[in-house]
Amino acid sequence: MTLHYYEALARPAQPRGCVLVTGSNRGIGLELVRQLAASPWPPHHIFATCRHPEGPRGKALRDLAAQHPSIKLVQLDTVNVPSIQGAVRAVDSHLKDQGLNLLINNAGVSSHATLHSLDSQEMLSVFATNVVGTLQVTKVRVELLAKGAGKEGLSCSRAAVINVSTKLGSIGLCLGVLQAPMYPYRASKAAQNMVTRCLAVELQEKGILCAAIHPGWVKTDMGTEEAPLMVEHSVRGILTVLASLSQDTSGTFLDWEGNSLPW
Amino acid sequence: MTLHYYEALARPAQPRGCVLVTGSNRGIGLELVRQLAASPWPPHHIFATCRHPEGPRGKALRDLAAQHPSIKLVQLDTVNVPSIQGAVRAVDSHLKDQGLNLLINNAGVSSHATLHSLDSQEMLSVFATNVVGTLQVTKVRVELLAKGAGKEGLSCSRAAVINVSTKLGSIGLCLGVLQAPMYPYRASKAAQNMVTRCLAVELQEKGILCAAIHPGWVKTDMGTEEAPLMVEHSVRGILTVLASLSQDTSGTFLDWEGNSLPW
Repeated sequence: MTLHYYEALARPAQPRGCVLVTGSNRGIGLELVRQLAASPWPPHHIFATCRHPEGPRGKALRDLAAQHPSIKLVQLDTVNVPSIQGAVRAVDSHLKDQGLNLLINNAGVSSHATLHSLDSQEMLSVFATNVVGTLQVTKVRVELLAKGAGKEGLSCSRAAVINVSTKLGSIGLCLGVLQAPMYPYRASKAAQNMVTRCLAVELQEKGILCAAIHPGWVKTDMGTEEAPLMVEHSVRGILTVLASLSQDTSGTFLDWEGNSLPW
Repeated sequence: MTLHYYEALARPAQPRGCVLVTGSNRGIGLELVRQLAASPWPPHHIFATCRHPEGPRGKALRDLAAQHPSIKLVQLDTVNVPSIQGAVRAVDSHLKDQGLNLLINNAGVSSHATLHSLDSQEMLSVFATNVVGTLQVTKVRVELLAKGAGKEGLSCSRAAVINVSTKLGSIGLCLGVLQAPMYPYRASKAAQNMVTRCLAVELQEKGILCAAIHPGWVKTDMGTEEAPLMVEHSVRGILTVLASLSQDTSGTFLDWEGNSLPW
């Protein structure tokens, strides 16, 4: 039986988890926060982070938070180490002695550079957000996740790091290069997938699961209107996949329907 | 029958190719230049590039070049765009109307950072050399490689980009993470492998082959004295593998013995 993430949370002897989602002011991040908060058994705290929660691009998230006391807005720019430290303090002030159960590294940027139009600084900036940012945020939350971990095996309702990846980052598939060269984005996501695999190995002994998820090609600012998949549908799938993850699927690359993808 | 790279060059109707090797002042790069120059049928020009050909770390390369007129020393810092442009002019002044047949992107740096010791700037610096540098050097030499390409299919003696990779960059293998975490190095090499795959697709129509090669764990400054493999042995293997590459193996990831590696 496939359980949705919040159904898994509600099972007896499961804590009402605490979740942190980066890049949560729009697209997939915003919808993750929305579906988690609106669930019958919402997490105790949903830390919804983004670069400018008080700015015009944070309005939808602020409106959502106004309806759900479980949502805590936290300023976090994943490429800025002082901002990461500020977010750590903000989250810790809410958590007190609780651990964190689920970190969803969703913040990411795209880039459509071809070989010809490639710019070094632009490419490094994509790496900074998609790879280094993911690692830096994970690094500062490892101990808090370890606190949430149980001794009964790995799961997303105990302690997990989920990195939002993309099928375009699959080296094995190498999809549509001529139609969408996107060297910086593809290379950064392949690098992020390597990070996911390494984290899964390293964090297993602390009881922390780690996996990469392809959300599908979704109608968002990043995915554009051309995309075939509604964000609600994608996120419902992602949360169902998260609830199914275990020791056996830590370190894997799955799409929003639970299909395994090649690295 | 397996031919070595310079045997392949000597086959009738093959041009005496022009080769460019980056990071050629030491380790695998230096040995590649040495074996190419010392072959019975050396390439017409071997452009041996490094950051400081005139400095103390360029001495072994200068000594080698003094014995072989085919070797041309060229200053090239792969993370510095003006330096890349300077190298383009230096190479073009030698080539006149000839094309380039083989570009070996060998320049690279390692990094032993763990999750705990990870530094953002250090990680970006590794990406800059191993991924962005590889792409920027390839970008400015694509047209020259296309000039060397024939119409009879892909080969390293016609037109090829070879990116020196590593088994540690294989996401599928994910070898020895606990013994050698190396997040920046592994992630950068996974990203570079993605770049290799994308280049193979994009450059095929220009008649340019592209592949990633794992040189083995080699006794060099980077590989340390602990490594089991002599650099002479590794490079002999690499040159034999290069001679065997064709349309069918463009876009693959092979070790110095020709074994296929998972992405």
